[in-house]
Amino acid sequence: MSDTDTNNDWRESTIDSAQAQEHPETALEVAKITMLRQSIDNVDMAIIALLAERFKYTTQVGALKARAGFAPADYKREEYQIERLHRLAVDAGLDPDIAEIYREFVVTEAKKRHQRIADAGGDPGVLDVFA
Amino acid sequence: MSDTDTNNDWRESTIDSAQAQEHPETALEVAKITMLRQSIDNVDMAIIALLAERFKYTTQVGALKARAGFAPADYKREEYQIERLHRLAVDAGLDPDIAEIYREFVVTEAKKRHQRIADAGGDPGVLDVFA
Repeated sequence: MSDTDTNNDWRESTIDSAQAQEHPETALEVAKITMLRQSIDNVDMAIIALLAERFKYTTQVGALKARAGFAPADYKREEYQIERLHRLAVDAGLDPDIAEIYREFVVTEAKKRHQRIADAGGDPGVLDVFA
Repeated sequence: MSDTDTNNDWRESTIDSAQAQEHPETALEVAKITMLRQSIDNVDMAIIALLAERFKYTTQVGALKARAGFAPADYKREEYQIERLHRLAVDAGLDPDIAEIYREFVVTEAKKRHQRIADAGGDPGVLDVFA
């Protein structure tokens, strides 16, 4: 770790091969970061695919709820999800706060879309191609 | 779809077998919703596992950045991620707005943790077991 605050200019710079050449003392860290970022990108690709499937499912739920006259919100279901995701996060070694932020994000977005479907009388076509 | 607003009381209620028995006209929808929810729960389980891996990777990146003296933020990397996730979302049939909300959520949380590691002089032990 460098304590030279005079070198502050490069602390904000992008981590790439140019950076590594300019500061050979950080080359090993730059190489490791580059490798880790590839794994992070792979994880993101998998999560985006899963989110796409999740929203396809919730769109179907939204259409069924609207057709049957159910409200978009279901608080008992949400309680179940909060407890379950907390438990799964702990098991997986993930900060449960992050699982809860994830849950709020997907549930909020799904509910918004359910309301739009309900307003259109149960027609999921009200959502665009990304519904 | 029911237009009987007088029945508004059950529109807010939980979707379960009791609900289906009370309102047999919605039994098919309830059964379908129950099945879809199982798939949604399976997707969530997979995403929680992937998020756990993602934060393990970003914790390592945070420690390497702190050791090399890099700032937690890297705007060039963020631009790359924004463009890539948008493209992946469109390919997967996911609303790109959702991909962007996802990206903001994970990057914000990762950066918070990177800052904590940097403040502790590159020691990822500063984060608890969920780091």
